[in-house]
Amino acid sequence: MATDHQLFDEMPVNLSKYSKRVLLKTILDRADGGLGLVEQRVVVGGWVKSSREMRKDPPPPPTTTTQPPVGGGGGGDAKEDAGGKDVKCVEVFQSRFPFLRTIIKVFGGNIAHTKEKLESIVPKPQPSMISFLQISDGSSVVSLQIMVDSSIAPPSLLMPTGTCILAEGILQKPSLQGKHVIELKAEKLLHIGIVDQDRYPLSKKSLPLARLRNCAHFRPRTTTVASVMRVRNVLTQASHTFFQNQGFVHVEVPILTATDTDGFSEKFEVSTSSVSTKEQKREEPVSMDDTVNISLETVMLSIAEKSKKVEELKRTDSNKEALAAAVHDLQKTNALAAELEARLKSKSRSKPKSKSKSSEFFSNEAFLTSSGSLHLESCASALGNVYAFGPRFQADISESKKSLAESWMIETEIAFSELEDVMSCAEDFLKFVSDYVSENCYENLYFLSKRVDKTIIDRLRSMASTPFEKISYTTAVEVLEKVVDKTFETKIQWGAALTEEHESYLVDEFYKKPVIIYDHPQELKPFNVRINDDGKTVAAFDVIVPKVGVLIRGSQKEERLNHLSKRINELGLQKEQYEWYLDLRKQGTVKHSGFSVTFDVMVLFATGLNDVQDAVPFPRNHGKLHN
Amino acid sequence: MATDHQLFDEMPVNLSKYSKRVLLKTILDRADGGLGLVEQRVVVGGWVKSSREMRKDPPPPPTTTTQPPVGGGGGGDAKEDAGGKDVKCVEVFQSRFPFLRTIIKVFGGNIAHTKEKLESIVPKPQPSMISFLQISDGSSVVSLQIMVDSSIAPPSLLMPTGTCILAEGILQKPSLQGKHVIELKAEKLLHIGIVDQDRYPLSKKSLPLARLRNCAHFRPRTTTVASVMRVRNVLTQASHTFFQNQGFVHVEVPILTATDTDGFSEKFEVSTSSVSTKEQKREEPVSMDDTVNISLETVMLSIAEKSKKVEELKRTDSNKEALAAAVHDLQKTNALAAELEARLKSKSRSKPKSKSKSSEFFSNEAFLTSSGSLHLESCASALGNVYAFGPRFQADISESKKSLAESWMIETEIAFSELEDVMSCAEDFLKFVSDYVSENCYENLYFLSKRVDKTIIDRLRSMASTPFEKISYTTAVEVLEKVVDKTFETKIQWGAALTEEHESYLVDEFYKKPVIIYDHPQELKPFNVRINDDGKTVAAFDVIVPKVGVLIRGSQKEERLNHLSKRINELGLQKEQYEWYLDLRKQGTVKHSGFSVTFDVMVLFATGLNDVQDAVPFPRNHGKLHN
Repeated sequence: MATDHQLFDEMPVNLSKYSKRVLLKTILDRADGGLGLVEQRVVVGGWVKSSREMRKDPPPPPTTTTQPPVGGGGGGDAKEDAGGKDVKCVEVFQSRFPFLRTIIKVFGGNIAHTKEKLESIVPKPQPSMISFLQISDGSSVVSLQIMVDSSIAPPSLLMPTGTCILAEGILQKPSLQGKHVIELKAEKLLHIGIVDQDRYPLSKKSLPLARLRNCAHFRPRTTTVASVMRVRNVLTQASHTFFQNQGFVHVEVPILTATDTDGFSEKFEVSTSSVSTKEQKREEPVSMDDTVNISLETVMLSIAEKSKKVEELKRTDSNKEALAAAVHDLQKTNALAAELEARLKSKSRSKPKSKSKSSEFFSNEAFLTSSGSLHLESCASALGNVYAFGPRFQADISESKKSLAESWMIETEIAFSELEDVMSCAEDFLKFVSDYVSENCYENLYFLSKRVDKTIIDRLRSMASTPFEKISYTTAVEVLEKVVDKTFETKIQWGAALTEEHESYLVDEFYKKPVIIYDHPQELKPFNVRINDDGKTVAAFDVIVPKVGVLIRGSQKEERLNHLSKRINELGLQKEQYEWYLDLRKQGTVKHSGFSVTFDVMVLFATGLNDVQDAVPFPRNHGKLHN
Repeated sequence: MATDHQLFDEMPVNLSKYSKRVLLKTILDRADGGLGLVEQRVVVGGWVKSSREMRKDPPPPPTTTTQPPVGGGGGGDAKEDAGGKDVKCVEVFQSRFPFLRTIIKVFGGNIAHTKEKLESIVPKPQPSMISFLQISDGSSVVSLQIMVDSSIAPPSLLMPTGTCILAEGILQKPSLQGKHVIELKAEKLLHIGIVDQDRYPLSKKSLPLARLRNCAHFRPRTTTVASVMRVRNVLTQASHTFFQNQGFVHVEVPILTATDTDGFSEKFEVSTSSVSTKEQKREEPVSMDDTVNISLETVMLSIAEKSKKVEELKRTDSNKEALAAAVHDLQKTNALAAELEARLKSKSRSKPKSKSKSSEFFSNEAFLTSSGSLHLESCASALGNVYAFGPRFQADISESKKSLAESWMIETEIAFSELEDVMSCAEDFLKFVSDYVSENCYENLYFLSKRVDKTIIDRLRSMASTPFEKISYTTAVEVLEKVVDKTFETKIQWGAALTEEHESYLVDEFYKKPVIIYDHPQELKPFNVRINDDGKTVAAFDVIVPKVGVLIRGSQKEERLNHLSKRINELGLQKEQYEWYLDLRKQGTVKHSGFSVTFDVMVLFATGLNDVQDAVPFPRNHGKLHN
């Protein structure tokens, strides 16, 4: 390793601190595009995005191609070969192909063990050629052009898209006319990671995003997905910066929970997969009883109907919270069915059904959290202003392009705050983040504005500078009811959830700016939102923005024990799950409010993408998990 | 709400932007301790930590206590009573207790609905008293003293530890001699959140941390736990700052995964808890067959023995990775047992066991990830330098004080980097974070150094400034073998994992500084660590620091397809799970290295705590989940 380091002794460009190369952004993202670095020796690494080859001019006669080049520091550097322990049975090839010494170094002598293998990867002698490779290392939107003489390595080995190379060479003005400001003339290839073109999903040509979803483990190698990831990174930074600047404490809320944290999502259940658990499961056979009578059947039918209704409601994104009532209804019927069934069973089975799960890791049911807000309220009731940033889960099978089974959320909770405080906070947050990402991520946004959505930058700037419109739900309904020049698919009426179409009308056509809608009917919001004095509406709000619709949902939480207990009863929630949460109202209760940001949707807003599957490194959705 | 805001018009101290009060740190963390703010009117909120009451001097005759005070702006402000709609049946009490108007406002007229209830919370007339409350709002280690005259609210209502109050008043020099620089003379109480003392777990007296674990939802109200949470927050900030400064891209690796990401932890399995799934489960009864013969029994016995061995190994923290072999051995035996069992079953059962899980959310098995490193490698093979910060899971039942079922990890992966690069990165990271937290969190560290561990600050400073010792595993064993003045519980020999005792000897007694041990025997490290040329050791490293032992584990990953495939076969891992991961070696492979930091253990290091259960807001461990 010491010898590798000696390469850099004379290098004036800053080395990437923890890898043996210069990050491409150090060269390409300079104001002069790298021109000031001409004649400097650098080592750079990356993956080939596209390439072409040219005959060396004047083209040498074909017979000379197997000779080592004179000078130029190609693959034939004797030093690199010192020791020669990796050479083995491939020595015979070396006289013909001097670059083999590089290849052997690359593979550590372990892939090229047999002549057959070598012959399959080493091409037949070719006329002297030059490969022009566009490589990217993920640090910049721009690629660096690398010029490699075929005496260093054969073009066919280097040119396939996806090939990884680590090259040492001299920066120079481009040898060919074109868009490049600078190129690297390779003198040594320190590493080649070859590509099996037949099985590699990416190519020079850009592929539709939907097709890239099948290869999540490769797609950040495309400039589009890489840019999205870099924007996502800056959005993360921006979010932390906002909350830290405002003195909020970051807390980690638990992922594993026994509490139904939002009261309406389908949940993932967690169990341990140890041997003992499996045995335990086998000892609990439960067979459907033949004596199930008509009344249970009726209940089952009702469940089917209600499930259907729930599924229907789920198809509309914006109706999500309106689902609560339907889901609770279904849950109640399920509970009834379970009870009936249990009663029937106890009649027909002498041995009681064992419920023991002692070999499970948790002794009670454990779920993946769908919202950190309840736990965050507990932290706010001690630390004041807190926020969390982590993954949240919902097992609802949905075709929505804005939700996944696993998605990252930013959640905040503020003690001693009321609805209007937290609405201001949400607005300031979005303004800050929009401004931050415009300032700190311009090249990526510019690239995405050309490839994905040309309105990105304007939209971010407008978000940062335009005061949001704040209207009550009732006002929103009144506005929508008065619309005459347009027919909505779903007729609006007080009490119903606004659909995406309604929200889009308000934001894009009526107010022409982000809109905060507050004071929704109680039925449309979670159980823990504070009831207003009118007894009908609750202190909740949604922030609706152009392009993506609802981006933030928030509310003032119910701090009054009697109201909260009443609501839990009304909805038939399992009270024992909420004992600790009710404790917060029994012991030093405080007015508090908060909101949650669907981070993945914020990435859509900033990048112009339409589907969260493209905004998340490894999206999780209904179906098969591939990695 | 508008009237509330008018309160602040004349207020020169900065209001907390999103709540109706001044954060206590704005007053108390000033260089003058708040003295410069004397005579300013502020609104502050918080929870009572301790309190005492004093008779007003000169004590008025008992008969006068029910009369409203003259002046002083107490609870009897006529404005606040306007409308009076909340008064209801409690009017009768008002003439006797003017402060009731405040209480009624606090409860929104909803708790105090009956005379009985009121009588239970409203105390009998008392001589005129003053309560001195120490309140904290979570923003500072220091508490603010608030002086409340009993004409504003009865001491018995305010004084219990945990009571939440929002008070308006005037900052003044302390009325009593003591440690306080400043106090607030309350003029109005805008909110009181009472406490049911019999059921409230916290008290004035500080409780042992172990006892506080039973009330995770309240414990951040203690100064110790709040300080830990604030240090944790600054450690989070510091970690992000380090990686962002170095140009790393933050990526979110998936929590739900089909890949066994570390190849040795017990895993949590995830399923959906929908009605249809439950039905599905019921349709798959599998009963233990009576014809199970002796050979299966033998295998089962062997499983029991091997499980015991695994359990034994688990008890030693530092042996964790050494478990791999034992666990794999167990897994193989399990597989054998399953096969035998299946064969026996197929003989005795005509109906084949249904394996269909079509109603599940995922069509294949889904686990909670134990390490993000494999997915992170995929991102590094495109974006270069990446890091992740999120929750990781292991279902191992362990009594270790340094691990939980759910713990936050920082993981990083660096393309084109080798072992020495990533060891430098790990060292720089720890130095940066230690320095950052010392600089940005001093008050909290100082408090914890008094309460928990007086060496915290020195330890952090020493970590930030001392170069780490780097030794190979072989050297470590040699050093330990030469020790004569001490007998280790576990004898050291080459090939065995170092125990905590060995590690502690090296760090605390021999080198007296953080030690990085690298090049471990292959059997002790995960399947994907790069094999060294000696064919015995791998390019892994552990960073061992005083107080907590191993804090970081890292390695150069095996980038060579043939080596990696061979290792996966040797260990009997399920190859189909790793197809996508092997793809990274088939297509543009790159040398890369990374490490993972157990964030929760880093909190122990910085705070001096001994048990991660005290360092995590809601710790998850074997047993019952309470929230």
